[in-house]
Amino acid sequence: IIVWTNEEGSRFAPAMISSGVYAGLFGVDYAWSREDGDGKTLGAELQRIGYAGDQPCGTHPLGALIEVHIEQGPILEREGKTIGVVLGGQGQRWFDVRVTGQDAHSGSTPMQGRRDALAAAAPMIAAVEALAHANPPDAVATVGSLAVAPNSRNTIPGQIDFTIDLRHPDDDVLKAMGRSLRQDLTAIAGERGVGVTIEEIWHNPPVAFDPSCIDAVRGAAVDLGFAHRDMVSGAGHDACMVARKVPTSMIFVPCAGGLSHNEAESATPEDLAAGCDVLLKAMMTMGSSPPR
Amino acid sequence: IIVWTNEEGSRFAPAMISSGVYAGLFGVDYAWSREDGDGKTLGAELQRIGYAGDQPCGTHPLGALIEVHIEQGPILEREGKTIGVVLGGQGQRWFDVRVTGQDAHSGSTPMQGRRDALAAAAPMIAAVEALAHANPPDAVATVGSLAVAPNSRNTIPGQIDFTIDLRHPDDDVLKAMGRSLRQDLTAIAGERGVGVTIEEIWHNPPVAFDPSCIDAVRGAAVDLGFAHRDMVSGAGHDACMVARKVPTSMIFVPCAGGLSHNEAESATPEDLAAGCDVLLKAMMTMGSSPPR
Repeated sequence: IIVWTNEEGSRFAPAMISSGVYAGLFGVDYAWSREDGDGKTLGAELQRIGYAGDQPCGTHPLGALIEVHIEQGPILEREGKTIGVVLGGQGQRWFDVRVTGQDAHSGSTPMQGRRDALAAAAPMIAAVEALAHANPPDAVATVGSLAVAPNSRNTIPGQIDFTIDLRHPDDDVLKAMGRSLRQDLTAIAGERGVGVTIEEIWHNPPVAFDPSCIDAVRGAAVDLGFAHRDMVSGAGHDACMVARKVPTSMIFVPCAGGLSHNEAESATPEDLAAGCDVLLKAMMTMGSSPPR
Repeated sequence: IIVWTNEEGSRFAPAMISSGVYAGLFGVDYAWSREDGDGKTLGAELQRIGYAGDQPCGTHPLGALIEVHIEQGPILEREGKTIGVVLGGQGQRWFDVRVTGQDAHSGSTPMQGRRDALAAAAPMIAAVEALAHANPPDAVATVGSLAVAPNSRNTIPGQIDFTIDLRHPDDDVLKAMGRSLRQDLTAIAGERGVGVTIEEIWHNPPVAFDPSCIDAVRGAAVDLGFAHRDMVSGAGHDACMVARKVPTSMIFVPCAGGLSHNEAESATPEDLAAGCDVLLKAMMTMGSSPPR
């Protein structure tokens, strides 16, 4: 049984840092040197609370890893399923976009000749959404953060910065989405007479879980009589890091309204127990018949 | 010759406060009690710098007032005109809009069933712009300020607040634009499954300047041989306040690129001199033949 330190990354970015060290994606010195908003490091804080162990990280052998988690989405609840058999994790691409127009007076500047960065960003936001709808049912695309400058009620916005989060389980589709994104945003900027820069700041390829581990989870759900379906995780998880080194899979259980990272996040005791039962049975399967 | 205190209102809101007191729109106690960001009042600061005079404000008689100003827009420059004969000030309506959706995880929430407040705000911003294009050539409409909550890269935005600034010289058109605005935004919210509230926070009706004063300005431009055109001010000015009490008009001169409220704001000495010449001649006309 493992509880990984700092899965969310809310205090110490990036997320999934301990499982990342275990999987060899990050060095332990890098992890320890991560700072919170007050300049305290992860390493010093682990020392302070007595959690900086003396064993080297990443050498402890694991035969297989199976992680149970709420779905963080609405699919299981909507379909009345108890167990999600997770085949892998979606790939993610994160972009930073800057749209550059011209600040001007909102009253004395006629519509013709305006270079309104926010009026140009609006169809870009619509294009990002359309990109996901053009790749159903798995693609998702989100503009989560946006800043307006100078952000004054009576000034035409001269600069908009916004983020894009694209996800898809197939890296080829994800790459094609990225190409379309650049074409669409550049075309809109050209029509509008504004500048646009599109910088990719992260590309996390999809992760495929181990077939034996997936079979063990699906078999356990069948044996225990739980309604289930295969699915791909939309979120990042420690299992997605560890899967690069060790045979791995995941089990999802429903959560109310698909809500997560929200105070209303909720799952029923029955569903949580079902997830634990499937976990136990799948682990016993893996113990008696190790990964192929 | 008058220099009105606090025309911009940048330190002490609202703008045009002294001309507003003169015109009877604000009380002098209200004006003196306005505070800056540090809690200092306009009245105490006028006292401190020796500008709090002992004469009552608003009783000094004015026969007519003519204000000269840069256009703050690109029309004169674009048309190669030196003098703008200002017929009045546009009416303005300011709105605060809140769009309420549902925060959710950007990876694990399928496109179907999302209630993305920013994806809903995008077509609303486009609708605001379209409203101005539907009322050419004088209507302008601007979304100048927008805030996203929770404004996180990997969270679907649950709440958007934005501002709308609508302007038109005809109050009937401005009222119709306001009705269309409510219909359009409510329809988009309905299609999107998000909530929307639209609050009007200010309605400043159009101001028509005095015909004699307008004629004096136009006549001076003709007599002095300056290329000129009639126009309506898109911005607020002290003249728009004083016009409620005293025969008033304005003279505009070109500014580079139509830019204003920007460090690049610029006007040529020749154009400024032309504006002053028209002002002098118009004032002499008004002096020899008072307002009808």
